[in-house]
Amino acid sequence: MAPGLARKYEINADMGEGFGRWKMGPDEELMPLIDAANIACGFHAGDPSIMLKTIRLCKKHGVKAGAHPGLQDLFGFGRRKIEVDTGDMYAMILYQVGALKAMLDAEGVELSHIKPHGELFFYMQRDKAIMKAVLDACATFKVPVYACQNPEQEAMCDEMGIPFQGEVYVDVDYSPEGKLVPVSQSQQVNPELCRKRALGATMTGSGHDINGSQFSYGFKGRPFSICLHSDVPTVLENARAVRKVVDEANRAKFPSE
Amino acid sequence: MAPGLARKYEINADMGEGFGRWKMGPDEELMPLIDAANIACGFHAGDPSIMLKTIRLCKKHGVKAGAHPGLQDLFGFGRRKIEVDTGDMYAMILYQVGALKAMLDAEGVELSHIKPHGELFFYMQRDKAIMKAVLDACATFKVPVYACQNPEQEAMCDEMGIPFQGEVYVDVDYSPEGKLVPVSQSQQVNPELCRKRALGATMTGSGHDINGSQFSYGFKGRPFSICLHSDVPTVLENARAVRKVVDEANRAKFPSE
Amino acid sequence: MAPGLARKYEINADMGEGFGRWKMGPDEELMPLIDAANIACGFHAGDPSIMLKTIRLCKKHGVKAGAHPGLQDLFGFGRRKIEVDTGDMYAMILYQVGALKAMLDAEGVELSHIKPHGELFFYMQRDKAIMKAVLDACATFKVPVYACQNPEQEAMCDEMGIPFQGEVYVDVDYSPEGKLVPVSQSQQVNPELCRKRALGATMTGSGHDINGSQFSYGFKGRPFSICLHSDVPTVLENARAVRKVVDEANRAKFPSE
Amino acid sequence: MAPGLARKYEINADMGEGFGRWKMGPDEELMPLIDAANIACGFHAGDPSIMLKTIRLCKKHGVKAGAHPGLQDLFGFGRRKIEVDTGDMYAMILYQVGALKAMLDAEGVELSHIKPHGELFFYMQRDKAIMKAVLDACATFKVPVYACQNPEQEAMCDEMGIPFQGEVYVDVDYSPEGKLVPVSQSQQVNPELCRKRALGATMTGSGHDINGSQFSYGFKGRPFSICLHSDVPTVLENARAVRKVVDEANRAKFPSE
Repeated sequence: MAPGLARKYEINADMGEGFGRWKMGPDEELMPLIDAANIACGFHAGDPSIMLKTIRLCKKHGVKAGAHPGLQDLFGFGRRKIEVDTGDMYAMILYQVGALKAMLDAEGVELSHIKPHGELFFYMQRDKAIMKAVLDACATFKVPVYACQNPEQEAMCDEMGIPFQGEVYVDVDYSPEGKLVPVSQSQQVNPELCRKRALGATMTGSGHDINGSQFSYGFKGRPFSICLHSDVPTVLENARAVRKVVDEANRAKFPSE
Repeated sequence: MAPGLARKYEINADMGEGFGRWKMGPDEELMPLIDAANIACGFHAGDPSIMLKTIRLCKKHGVKAGAHPGLQDLFGFGRRKIEVDTGDMYAMILYQVGALKAMLDAEGVELSHIKPHGELFFYMQRDKAIMKAVLDACATFKVPVYACQNPEQEAMCDEMGIPFQGEVYVDVDYSPEGKLVPVSQSQQVNPELCRKRALGATMTGSGHDINGSQFSYGFKGRPFSICLHSDVPTVLENARAVRKVVDEANRAKFPSE
Repeated sequence: MAPGLARKYEINADMGEGFGRWKMGPDEELMPLIDAANIACGFHAGDPSIMLKTIRLCKKHGVKAGAHPGLQDLFGFGRRKIEVDTGDMYAMILYQVGALKAMLDAEGVELSHIKPHGELFFYMQRDKAIMKAVLDACATFKVPVYACQNPEQEAMCDEMGIPFQGEVYVDVDYSPEGKLVPVSQSQQVNPELCRKRALGATMTGSGHDINGSQFSYGFKGRPFSICLHSDVPTVLENARAVRKVVDEANRAKFPSE
Repeated sequence: MAPGLARKYEINADMGEGFGRWKMGPDEELMPLIDAANIACGFHAGDPSIMLKTIRLCKKHGVKAGAHPGLQDLFGFGRRKIEVDTGDMYAMILYQVGALKAMLDAEGVELSHIKPHGELFFYMQRDKAIMKAVLDACATFKVPVYACQNPEQEAMCDEMGIPFQGEVYVDVDYSPEGKLVPVSQSQQVNPELCRKRALGATMTGSGHDINGSQFSYGFKGRPFSICLHSDVPTVLENARAVRKVVDEANRAKFPSE
């Protein structure tokens, strides 16, 4: 099994999204509650010192350390549409993930996965050439990429030798087409809603879209990772609620892990 | 022998120091004349796409590819004094060299060496804690660092397991203390002066300071690398003159390489 | 008549588009050949020192000094599509033009006009809310804005009290819809082609689109400004050819200016 | 009397020091408690939209709006030593204050004063050429500059026609030489200490240095402005305590204002 792939249900969250003296998100409190951290790489947030500090926090709590590259847009936090040439995109992903990778090497920690941030993620979903450029860059690192949402994309990853890791979101909505609705347009969540969605996902492998229709995540029993947004105000309570569900599901389904 | 160390006399030059649409230096013309390129890593100059393009140019011409990290100062081209915390410095070096390393990995090219740029180099000479922070970061990559100018620094590198690579400058002056004089304060050079200095260095292992006094480089017969500044107007002519000297010296002294 | 409006035919060109140690365009040679300079304001190119230097060059040559604000994109030279919130856009234009205005005040030079750069110009043509946000900001400065290409836009400027200044391009093509074709997609020009187009514009008030069809610029005899791109390789020769045409036309049509 | 000068005791504080999505300081809560805001101009903190928002907040609360230019250093929040050429410094101050001034013009608010931020302030104290370059730029705006701490500097301002505004700090310490001790090296303050220091300053025109020795601020009865640091954890309580002292002193000493 490819290193970096989840061997049981996991929780992942974005980390290290401050910049210089500016903070974002309760990293210290959230870290003990998750399994995998997506570490900002300096383009949409993060700076070299915050990256290193976040890696050390991962190490302390035994949390997997992944790269969280984004568009080059500190002002817009990587959430604005920016036109990027595919050659530039390829180089920008190598640059960011490589920068984090060197710090992980220095700390003796493995790079566990790559998860594109914000608008970069949506850009990949909209534009096949951009998806290809990002995956090409990611292939250099031989770790799972959290960026695929459908069988076609899963096939593309397969072809490039990139391990596929399924993800479930419990604090934003899904459209009827199975696409993620941005935080700002999703209904406000609370810990109980997160708990219910996590329970549904682990028990039945399915969720509900904004119309209430049930849909299958399509992971065929393989363990997935539940993403929590660290900028949702109740993120710590959400994380505690989901942690409990995940731990119980893991005891039942993946007792040997 | 440590990979990256010169096995015969070499010429190195800074490369990839444009940014976006802005150019700097005749990279395409200079590349065939040198042995090792110091590639800017985006902090004082360079951007991800220029870095990748420069790596491919190295590959095409069989030139060794080294990292050329600098202070975070595009406006000042890394030549202004900027106060950097040692922890920040350590992380900034890992960040820059790691970014380049990932691109080299993607292209199947080895990282050959690390050469600090401009004011970063002078900062290391002035401040031992900064020298230590930079070398600590460099040690992660296990390649020679072009940053040491005296036996004390050579001993420091030795202790940290960093191979020592001697360097000679033929297009700037040396102070009576054996220190490099910045380009702007050195006498203007021409190809003939570069040729003479290169010849002196390869034949006698010694040079002359601004007062005309002879001094030994102290390399005890080991091959060194001659640095040429790509922003000197006559750089191409300088390079051709030095190339000839170096090739002849190598045939005489290191015929098997 | 509103200050800043052309009282006879003029030539304008972008100026001050270097950054730090990087140069762009032959500013010193081009300045004596033009009537109005569009000075980059630090977002797509330019920095405070280059801005000030360019203002002093305008002063020396009696050239009008206009602001050339752009998208915040040094890497892409303001030529990439970037999504900007209208409120952010309004503030960004005030910021850039205000920065230049203070330097003009310090030098005792008037702000003559505002000309949006590159993709900002095209964004305004595509998106009415962005056009409105930019013009709202420009209205603070009470000078002509070079950004309108049709009667509808002219009416919008009128309503906001912004003087309308007609412009003609002789080194890029016009589409059949009367829109500018970017430099990269236009046919390569030479001084003779520029001369002919300038002559046609001043003599007949009309030009030809890429299909060879004649169209009227619609300026009804009012003097217009001819824009020359300073990054076209033959810009100096183009400028000399157009200068001659413009000077002759001015002697004939606006002898008292 | 020069506009912008305090006609009675005032409180000033730094405002608008977020960047993009990152926040810093309780601007909304603090604004109603102060008389004058020092608005960050985008170099050490702040961005165009935050600047405009802060100006509107000043307008709402009838607070004077001043410019708070800094060194170009978002990563270091303008608190690191950076070498700046005096010509560059002059241009950078014009750029920042001009950018804010245009926004004030658009909002119909007067620029009240200029207060250099952090390391820029200390740089001016250390280096006369830098002090001169900054004051030269400030002179363009004809408003008081909060940057002088002794009679020599007051004389320099006088000569350049820059109105002198005295300032008192109650949440950091003073050295025996009468110099400000940075927040990080000062004793931690509480509202009661701030209240006592403000009372001493308004009643006796004097304070105490870190050794407990009393010294005169030297304002000869003229009203001064008390600066509060918005990044001190108890800033809101400090502001309320000082507000009360200032209001009472104003009723007693400047009843007609």
